[in-house]
Amino acid sequence: MASSPRVVVLAGGVGGAKFTLGVRAALARMGAPEATVIVNTGDDLWLSGVRLQPDIDSVLYALAGQNDTERGWGRAGDTERVNAELQAWGAGWPWFTLGDLDLGTHLARTGWLRDGMSVTQVVHRLSQRWPLGVRMLPMTDSEVDTHVVTAEGRMHFQEWWTRHRATITPLAFENPGIDQAQPAPGVREAIADADIVLVAPSNPVVSIGPILAVPGVREALRGARRVVGVAGVIGGKVVRGMADVCLTAIGVETRSDAVAAHYGARSAGGLLDAWVMAEEDAGLAPAVAARGIHPVIAPLWMSDADTSEAVARATLDAGTMMRGSFS
Amino acid sequence: MASSPRVVVLAGGVGGAKFTLGVRAALARMGAPEATVIVNTGDDLWLSGVRLQPDIDSVLYALAGQNDTERGWGRAGDTERVNAELQAWGAGWPWFTLGDLDLGTHLARTGWLRDGMSVTQVVHRLSQRWPLGVRMLPMTDSEVDTHVVTAEGRMHFQEWWTRHRATITPLAFENPGIDQAQPAPGVREAIADADIVLVAPSNPVVSIGPILAVPGVREALRGARRVVGVAGVIGGKVVRGMADVCLTAIGVETRSDAVAAHYGARSAGGLLDAWVMAEEDAGLAPAVAARGIHPVIAPLWMSDADTSEAVARATLDAGTMMRGSFS
Repeated sequence: MASSPRVVVLAGGVGGAKFTLGVRAALARMGAPEATVIVNTGDDLWLSGVRLQPDIDSVLYALAGQNDTERGWGRAGDTERVNAELQAWGAGWPWFTLGDLDLGTHLARTGWLRDGMSVTQVVHRLSQRWPLGVRMLPMTDSEVDTHVVTAEGRMHFQEWWTRHRATITPLAFENPGIDQAQPAPGVREAIADADIVLVAPSNPVVSIGPILAVPGVREALRGARRVVGVAGVIGGKVVRGMADVCLTAIGVETRSDAVAAHYGARSAGGLLDAWVMAEEDAGLAPAVAARGIHPVIAPLWMSDADTSEAVARATLDAGTMMRGSFS
Repeated sequence: MASSPRVVVLAGGVGGAKFTLGVRAALARMGAPEATVIVNTGDDLWLSGVRLQPDIDSVLYALAGQNDTERGWGRAGDTERVNAELQAWGAGWPWFTLGDLDLGTHLARTGWLRDGMSVTQVVHRLSQRWPLGVRMLPMTDSEVDTHVVTAEGRMHFQEWWTRHRATITPLAFENPGIDQAQPAPGVREAIADADIVLVAPSNPVVSIGPILAVPGVREALRGARRVVGVAGVIGGKVVRGMADVCLTAIGVETRSDAVAAHYGARSAGGLLDAWVMAEEDAGLAPAVAARGIHPVIAPLWMSDADTSEAVARATLDAGTMMRGSFS
């Protein structure tokens, strides 16, 4: 592998953030340039007139070392004084916690958006406070919040996920307006310039799905030098979250090979050149290979910085194993 | 005086809130119905995408007993965690403090406004949390934020007042869009139904001024049974704030009789039937009377609940002294 691959990561929330931390560490050790991470904005929402971007913030806080690692989301050391007050007013969503420090981010963002800044400009500005070691881009500047269609009605993804804990059977996930959306400035260029595009082990349906649904992104990925995905499913179970419910809803089994098949082989018009699978799933490698996707077996549990870097390194190496070297 | 006068108060911020507390106490002692307070919304502003209504909140918090009496503004026991974070982002106004509890109000309000509620509906909803003993109405549902024209440019009133402490000479105060505004629902009716309309000792220029500038309010007041104003100027000085700078800007001397003349006699197409002046200003009473306004001398320092009630009582009695009794 060339010692300085240019890397793009497609990522969602906490899983994507962990993986991105690993990529940052692996690239720094190689002396490679900073990666560009293209972050899902389908989770974004308006709440009490304030714009929230859960995935952007998860990646931002993790890269900045400001994330709450115990709780798994939000800012370390956060409090909820404003949120308690909001609820005393009967406003907001009682089942959706807004941390005070987190609200500082939301208010800064909302003010900048109301001032006319684009989402890309806002994310860039948010990226300036701490040295992140990664360039962050939103997938699009358009508002394409994910909605969940259920037998009980249509609701914002966050309501379905946080309030209902994904217990209401989803019939479909939709991003109204995404047909008219465009990739954020720099997204196409980053993909075209990359030696390797990594698909983080984020939720394939509601984290990676919206990124791929932005018109122009799939086309850009078809022209990419190589695309390697990382399984977020290990031993038939999702590593975190409730991605299995999302996969089931779109008719994909919660199995590493099934997710790879869902993404599809680039040689067959799909997404992936290679698929990094957990050791537990080695037996599924032939099925992945049969789909035209190069299977790579690696330990996939990201429990700390070292293991996250190891997963990233294995993913970067997957390109090498497949074609020998970058550039 | 009839034992149950129906009362309307025109009020701005902290001075208006203190006076309204006094009116509430005086009316309760008389067994009279709750007063209606029509509050200035010219101080309102958008800050970091959030809608603030300083005068509405000052009156609300004071009536609810939630105000910070030591500091003189905001919520008692408030903190500034979110504000510190906002400033760390380089967002918001560094010279404008947003309390955390206060932000709960701002966010609830902003969410309701974004949901399509009118300002009147929002104020009504804000009024439901604590028993206020007073009906609150905004002067208008339209956004007519006060701007200050200065030689250094035009700025929002809050910037001029809070950031510059009124030290930049104002050339004019304007409320863009107020020509197209209407009184909030209920404002005209409350004035028409009132036995007495009280003009609180608030800033005549930027608190009472915008209320009077809403098309239809002056007409309604011309049809009112009686209108009594209370001087916020005592012994040639303003009781609080920087109203003298505002008065000077519009060519009015900081003297009780000059403010009365600025409001004008109803008999001459102006606002006032009577004007309650401080004992210190008794010597100016003839000048007020010469303008066709009935002068009433009373102690006007509102230092606690008792003195505020006494001022309110003197103001209510002014109607009696002038015409004998309420109908």
